[in-house]
Amino acid sequence: MNSFGERFKFTTFGESHGKALGCIVDGVPAGITIDEEFIQSEMDRRKPGKSKFETARKEGDKIEILSGVFEGQTTGTSLAMVLFNENQKSKDYTNVKDLFRPGHADFTYFHKYGIRDYRGGGRSSARETSARVAAGAVAKLMLQELGINIQSGICSINGIQAQSYDFNHATTSEIFALDASKESEQKEAILKAKESHNSVGGVALVRVSNAPIGLGEAIYHKLDSQIANAMMSINAVKGVEIGDGIESTKVTGLDNNDQITSDGFKSNHSGGILGGISNGEDIIVKVHFKPTPSIFLNQDTVDTANQDVNCALKGRHDPCVAPRGSIVAESMMALVLADMLLLNMSSKLENIKKVYN
Amino acid sequence: MNSFGERFKFTTFGESHGKALGCIVDGVPAGITIDEEFIQSEMDRRKPGKSKFETARKEGDKIEILSGVFEGQTTGTSLAMVLFNENQKSKDYTNVKDLFRPGHADFTYFHKYGIRDYRGGGRSSARETSARVAAGAVAKLMLQELGINIQSGICSINGIQAQSYDFNHATTSEIFALDASKESEQKEAILKAKESHNSVGGVALVRVSNAPIGLGEAIYHKLDSQIANAMMSINAVKGVEIGDGIESTKVTGLDNNDQITSDGFKSNHSGGILGGISNGEDIIVKVHFKPTPSIFLNQDTVDTANQDVNCALKGRHDPCVAPRGSIVAESMMALVLADMLLLNMSSKLENIKKVYN
Amino acid sequence: MNSFGERFKFTTFGESHGKALGCIVDGVPAGITIDEEFIQSEMDRRKPGKSKFETARKEGDKIEILSGVFEGQTTGTSLAMVLFNENQKSKDYTNVKDLFRPGHADFTYFHKYGIRDYRGGGRSSARETSARVAAGAVAKLMLQELGINIQSGICSINGIQAQSYDFNHATTSEIFALDASKESEQKEAILKAKESHNSVGGVALVRVSNAPIGLGEAIYHKLDSQIANAMMSINAVKGVEIGDGIESTKVTGLDNNDQITSDGFKSNHSGGILGGISNGEDIIVKVHFKPTPSIFLNQDTVDTANQDVNCALKGRHDPCVAPRGSIVAESMMALVLADMLLLNMSSKLENIKKVYN
Amino acid sequence: MNSFGERFKFTTFGESHGKALGCIVDGVPAGITIDEEFIQSEMDRRKPGKSKFETARKEGDKIEILSGVFEGQTTGTSLAMVLFNENQKSKDYTNVKDLFRPGHADFTYFHKYGIRDYRGGGRSSARETSARVAAGAVAKLMLQELGINIQSGICSINGIQAQSYDFNHATTSEIFALDASKESEQKEAILKAKESHNSVGGVALVRVSNAPIGLGEAIYHKLDSQIANAMMSINAVKGVEIGDGIESTKVTGLDNNDQITSDGFKSNHSGGILGGISNGEDIIVKVHFKPTPSIFLNQDTVDTANQDVNCALKGRHDPCVAPRGSIVAESMMALVLADMLLLNMSSKLENIKKVYN
Repeated sequence: MNSFGERFKFTTFGESHGKALGCIVDGVPAGITIDEEFIQSEMDRRKPGKSKFETARKEGDKIEILSGVFEGQTTGTSLAMVLFNENQKSKDYTNVKDLFRPGHADFTYFHKYGIRDYRGGGRSSARETSARVAAGAVAKLMLQELGINIQSGICSINGIQAQSYDFNHATTSEIFALDASKESEQKEAILKAKESHNSVGGVALVRVSNAPIGLGEAIYHKLDSQIANAMMSINAVKGVEIGDGIESTKVTGLDNNDQITSDGFKSNHSGGILGGISNGEDIIVKVHFKPTPSIFLNQDTVDTANQDVNCALKGRHDPCVAPRGSIVAESMMALVLADMLLLNMSSKLENIKKVYN
Repeated sequence: MNSFGERFKFTTFGESHGKALGCIVDGVPAGITIDEEFIQSEMDRRKPGKSKFETARKEGDKIEILSGVFEGQTTGTSLAMVLFNENQKSKDYTNVKDLFRPGHADFTYFHKYGIRDYRGGGRSSARETSARVAAGAVAKLMLQELGINIQSGICSINGIQAQSYDFNHATTSEIFALDASKESEQKEAILKAKESHNSVGGVALVRVSNAPIGLGEAIYHKLDSQIANAMMSINAVKGVEIGDGIESTKVTGLDNNDQITSDGFKSNHSGGILGGISNGEDIIVKVHFKPTPSIFLNQDTVDTANQDVNCALKGRHDPCVAPRGSIVAESMMALVLADMLLLNMSSKLENIKKVYN
Repeated sequence: MNSFGERFKFTTFGESHGKALGCIVDGVPAGITIDEEFIQSEMDRRKPGKSKFETARKEGDKIEILSGVFEGQTTGTSLAMVLFNENQKSKDYTNVKDLFRPGHADFTYFHKYGIRDYRGGGRSSARETSARVAAGAVAKLMLQELGINIQSGICSINGIQAQSYDFNHATTSEIFALDASKESEQKEAILKAKESHNSVGGVALVRVSNAPIGLGEAIYHKLDSQIANAMMSINAVKGVEIGDGIESTKVTGLDNNDQITSDGFKSNHSGGILGGISNGEDIIVKVHFKPTPSIFLNQDTVDTANQDVNCALKGRHDPCVAPRGSIVAESMMALVLADMLLLNMSSKLENIKKVYN
Repeated sequence: MNSFGERFKFTTFGESHGKALGCIVDGVPAGITIDEEFIQSEMDRRKPGKSKFETARKEGDKIEILSGVFEGQTTGTSLAMVLFNENQKSKDYTNVKDLFRPGHADFTYFHKYGIRDYRGGGRSSARETSARVAAGAVAKLMLQELGINIQSGICSINGIQAQSYDFNHATTSEIFALDASKESEQKEAILKAKESHNSVGGVALVRVSNAPIGLGEAIYHKLDSQIANAMMSINAVKGVEIGDGIESTKVTGLDNNDQITSDGFKSNHSGGILGGISNGEDIIVKVHFKPTPSIFLNQDTVDTANQDVNCALKGRHDPCVAPRGSIVAESMMALVLADMLLLNMSSKLENIKKVYN
């Protein structure tokens, strides 16, 4: 089940060290101008190696469109994109081939499938998220046509929390920090983890502005439930909050309700979603990333024969995945919104008549 | 989109004050013994009016099976269940007919659909969750055949947190409290809210024991992402955590990784899920409920013509929805697991040969 | 898998002799006026016992709407309908309980599910199609809002073929005959089969007029492939043709191509579908029904222990299911078109802007 | 909607003259040995230019697997395959750029999407079916593990019908003829059409042997309805029959019913499917292909401005698509069966216990 979405739907393929990764995006309306440079720029935001806060690993992230675009515009048919793994030559995996790295999917993939591509995590590698960013870029091109804007940034690293959110600052920060005043402390936490061969967690915030009222389907395809689905499907995510989220469990109804006047909502505790449907306010989502399990310290584990062994990984890994993860979260948000926009078109007869009459 | 699940799939219908509510459960394997008393007992756990901590409202919660069962066993065909609303006579809704109750779906439903069944919230009422509990009870009957057990309870009310979890105690507590030592404080918070015509939030914890390794599909139908989807679709839920969840963002990788020995995992920070797939440990999920928006205090709002009006609700509502919500969360967990059990059957050729040879 | 459709989607439940049958229709746009008398009139067209050419069996076909409609209009939420089986008291099924009626699903249901509701065929009974007609009536109410019209009739009984098609005549004919000049011969064939305790097959023709250009999705949800899917899912159907269908395999491309002028298509061999998408011409479909397998002659069969036994059925059955089947085919066509209308809304950015701007 | 299947599911992409075509196959169980030579041999059976009865056009049909296979075995993750169009340099399309070729999808794609890749039909080209054959080859590798066999051949060309079926002969025939005694007459019909710049239709027969009892889901995902869906989605198909199909409408129930003895079914008029579920007999399907619309004779048509123009095509096209279409039909059958095999696994609790206990 490598697909996500109902009407604006994408399917991904590829392993960390296989020939290629990519996706097919289905349900893209015809007539959207495809700006390939924009898509590549989104890939570049996610790619590793941009600073010392990220893994120094280089990945082939040159995206290529194989179908679905004609003379610069989408044609309404399936749009395939591919990233070839430039250096897929297998390095030596002897040290991980037969053991289960703690905190990774090695154990569960082995038992579920009975076979495991152990090269760099295979399909379970976060490298898969590059395909999401490519698909998300196409979704963003559609959202832009409707004036919808998505931004993201880091609101917490290792418990060091932003006190205020500046999305413009985030775009210039090496760690996409939302609060310039907390940025250096957050950076230090990452470097400290890196130097001690350990890792730290963090939290990304995603904000959508100018979304129309009405996005989200009743009961089991709600906007918030699909956002939760989308975000929790990202590697290393262990928690999702909408609006005030967990804080709202600690206050009273009177404090949490967003009262309304003829000028609009007086507050936005709900994070822009009521009854699973967008209310026109900013959509606010927090995405919680655990510390990356790839650390370079001795750990206990077992091999595929369930024999105790020592796990001592080598290589290059992000000391904190939350910053690059925020780009993925932003992409998943774009994909959810694109889907919801298409789904909502048939909510009322009035809309149908607009299209057919 | 009133359906949930891929292979073990249910679809619900019905409004708070319509003729009836119910569901069709599709994909139920043949040969499961249907214990109607068990299904009714699950309905009774969710139903309101069991104590002073809940709304005193009485709902018709007598479940009736219309199809899919023959001589006490499932037949493999669609299983329909219905709850007739015993007292659907319309009381006077003049006071809410044309205004949008803050914190409710009134505003978004009106704008999305252009029409709104204002009687008790219509389709957006939490009354819909009674159909989930009915479907969940059927899922539980299947899980029981495989020895899988689900429990739940309340770990926090209005910020008052349980220090330890006793799932047996929860079954005897009027508020399903997991920690007897915090129970009276939590109850007081609820009563205080009730007396002041306000409401409070809370957090439910769901635990699955004895789930097999391998549940959860790769990438976009992961066990954790579907749990997040399921839980966030419940009325009033604003946050979902798996395992240590948000706490894990504050520790290092070394502290968060669950190391493994030949005797099993040394800890369970992951909440029983690695790479989106169950690892055989207990599955642990926290579900965060906002305070119910139905409060009996003056609030600002607008009517359908966007005129400022005062909202002064009357009636009977839960001062805290988390306790009854925990039963719904438990049901949704059962439904997710039932689906994942069926989906996982075809993960490897070996399983297919077990069935066909 | 008791659901059909992607956006306008229905799910059915119920067995021939269970408590009730019915359906949930999901994805119905809000704002459609629900004419309950029209829905009942559609049920009445399908119901048995209207003439001597049909089974004299009486079925409870009084449809009841349980949800999704408020003050006479659809609300955008799931619409449930139910038919209670008025006389579900079990007659004596001793004679069929343990044997497999030839030509029926008894054999395959028993082996697939390991259990079988043998009362009147259980779930495999054509009684299930009453739920399709109810759902189809809702679809028709939506299609009428857009001026789309569906008609049907019988073009062949036992090989006796209509020479011309008069859809108005069909509405007045007891066997829905399209050709008045062949009607008596066709009726005689049915009566002869009835008198000899045997049965005959027949062919229904469905015609859609005024469908917009553009219905049908690319490649795997084509209009023709979904029509084929829909029709072949009806009990007793063994063949489906679009437009000239099988005849087109016997002519040349020059004769079969529908040439075009500025006044429109010069012919309609294609049956209104090109590349899986409607071209604005009448959509023409032929649906082939085998003779009903329920005959009252001695037949060889086996019982559930694979012992040879004689099968001598009693009861009341249609000597020819094609006429009543034509109403079901018409309903399935309405359901396919309703789905395609909603799906096609997002085919191009231009449509999206019409809805959101 | 470029996907087909529920559990064994494939999604295709690519245009006739774009960079590449291909597919992602999702739901492939882990542990299947992938014989790349077999997959290529299936591609070769479909590819054009093998004889004078086919178009002389050369297509790049070298299949490349990008993911989902590790050390020669499937891993349970998505399997991507791609065919690069070797010679995608655009020839001159001036003559078709702005006009609608009769019998083609040009007209409907233009109106549905507002934009059209006119190079060789773009997405609507039968070149897309090469991706189906690649996916179908993977399905066949799974079916072979269970001993299921699929064969096909041509039973009619331009109305010249085979009198007997010899599937072995078909494998050696240039036109996959099932009846050697009719082959030369059928070949002549094709050559005559070719010489007169015209085309002819034909009929393919697909036979499955050794399928287990129980394939096909109840009511709306029946084996026969999905076969009809699959076959009708193939370019140029206008009719589908199961078993005796249309002939069964002309006989009585007594003649059409397949009676049963303790040695098995006495006949197979049903084509191996009862109630939408396989009964263990050979599955028999007839697929009717219209004459290819690409002919080299003058035809009337209009351009995109609805001006009358003359359509005089040039190029190389199959004078009869049925023979190469039979390979596609065989592939679609394999894909339907693979899906049904996985779906049927959860039909009864007994099967579930086999997998989990």
